[in-house]
Amino acid sequence: MAAGTPGRVRVYEVGPRDGLQNEPAFVPTEDKVALIDALATAGLPAIEATSFVNPRWIPPLADAENLCAALRDRPGLPRITALVPNEKGLERALAHGLREVAVFMSASESHNKRNINKTRAEALAAFAPVFERCRAEGVAVRAYVSVVWGCPYEGPVSPAAVLETTERLLDLGAYEVSLGDTIGVGHPRQTRELLEALLATVPADRLAMHMHDTRGTALANCLVGLEMGIRTFDSSVGGLGGCPYAPGASGNLATEDLVYMLHGMGFETGVDLDRLVAAGMLAEALLGRPLPGRALKALAATCTTGPAPSSQPVSASDR
Amino acid sequence: MAAGTPGRVRVYEVGPRDGLQNEPAFVPTEDKVALIDALATAGLPAIEATSFVNPRWIPPLADAENLCAALRDRPGLPRITALVPNEKGLERALAHGLREVAVFMSASESHNKRNINKTRAEALAAFAPVFERCRAEGVAVRAYVSVVWGCPYEGPVSPAAVLETTERLLDLGAYEVSLGDTIGVGHPRQTRELLEALLATVPADRLAMHMHDTRGTALANCLVGLEMGIRTFDSSVGGLGGCPYAPGASGNLATEDLVYMLHGMGFETGVDLDRLVAAGMLAEALLGRPLPGRALKALAATCTTGPAPSSQPVSASDR
Repeated sequence: MAAGTPGRVRVYEVGPRDGLQNEPAFVPTEDKVALIDALATAGLPAIEATSFVNPRWIPPLADAENLCAALRDRPGLPRITALVPNEKGLERALAHGLREVAVFMSASESHNKRNINKTRAEALAAFAPVFERCRAEGVAVRAYVSVVWGCPYEGPVSPAAVLETTERLLDLGAYEVSLGDTIGVGHPRQTRELLEALLATVPADRLAMHMHDTRGTALANCLVGLEMGIRTFDSSVGGLGGCPYAPGASGNLATEDLVYMLHGMGFETGVDLDRLVAAGMLAEALLGRPLPGRALKALAATCTTGPAPSSQPVSASDR
Repeated sequence: MAAGTPGRVRVYEVGPRDGLQNEPAFVPTEDKVALIDALATAGLPAIEATSFVNPRWIPPLADAENLCAALRDRPGLPRITALVPNEKGLERALAHGLREVAVFMSASESHNKRNINKTRAEALAAFAPVFERCRAEGVAVRAYVSVVWGCPYEGPVSPAAVLETTERLLDLGAYEVSLGDTIGVGHPRQTRELLEALLATVPADRLAMHMHDTRGTALANCLVGLEMGIRTFDSSVGGLGGCPYAPGASGNLATEDLVYMLHGMGFETGVDLDRLVAAGMLAEALLGRPLPGRALKALAATCTTGPAPSSQPVSASDR
């Protein structure tokens, strides 16, 4: 398995966008800046900061302009990215100096229709001028494909449909396609079968995995991806980003869990886990509640010294 | 990988013992009986119910006698087991008709000393008459080895030390040795290296894995075990069983998460996931708080219909 030959893994932080977009209370722009600063300090190489959709669609991200303006003034940030649903969103992103944007669509027709009110063919057609403009501006485009492991309306999604969508997006000019397990139903056997189908024609370095931990299987699925050569994984600080249909349920894979596993296995990420835990603790403080990430909870307890097992007392009855 | 050739996996439920032993409030015996009934109804093949240690050591399990007496009267229960630290504990277990007991020790000297106040050599010597008596009575003995993936006092534990301990316990007469990641530090590469060392001489069907999800890696580690032929995994309903050094942190792997992954991959367990979720919801009701299991939270939201993704609404902005 590839785990025996460690290398570099890119951890793509989506917490400020994918995590905060479902928050019931608006998080002030200065708090978002502080969180992004903390994530940058932790060494994350890419941070998805917000979304240039119509503010009425996603009120928690209605400050996209102000946030990007504030971030533009800060030196030393890693790549800051944002979702753009169309040319109008792209213009707003470009006006704020973003050098990478992301488009998004679904692997299933029903989810695409409900999520962005277009057929998949219409979505791809609408993306064409976005890609064209980005090419002219030298701006990188990432593409998200959601409900890859299962659709809430259609159930299982065929690997062939995912492959077709992935190839179309790469042909349009996406540098990478991030495959999302939007409802967190994926399991490792399915992941292996899916990736076998995709990797027959798509190079591994054009794919990323965006797993949700709704049923606890995110890291096991990532492990399969690692074994098969995937080297970019999306995650969210603290697991920020609840599951819309089950209050309290986990959504996004927690960045700390992912980084803990990767470092243990010998992969380099450029992330400082202690500082990442500090960013997670900041996120909890800003939101006023614990986040679902597991390593965050465990490591926050030993944050000043880092995850040194020798400093952890155990009860007489532990096992 | 073995995932491509599904077979049967034995899920060894330890929630009533390993989960409840750290509960601050005593759970009434009748509630324990109700929980064990629910777990039995869900189809778990083995349930570790309690521990015949000195009640002063573990007050939450001080009702071991009453519990086992109550369980003895109930028809249709699967194998009910209990921890026994010594001959005295064994006598109590035998008096209540148990047909399987478990002994426990640590992979590291320091943890063994602090946990059971014996060196490992002393522990093994003390087990000898326990095994002897069990052999005479036809009672099965399981053995737990804790801190296999890391010791809170010594740090890393060598696979050679684990192998030696495992072989001694099997030689004494254990039918199976359950390897515990007591502090939840294990990662998949370490698991692979550990199992490679053990499986060179120990058959896979004499080993079980008892993973803690403290840093989110339990299922990924189990996946490695599955790939390498391990077919028995310990878990705890709802992830019951907190981590003693980090309030709110996860301890035991949640049975629902494990079963969800196994069933997705095509493994048979004999467990009805809907009924297992019902048992988890009962555990939450008895304890008056949510449990950390992820699949439990997600599936409880759709419990009457089971985990059908088509019944799950998603927000317009989900991805």
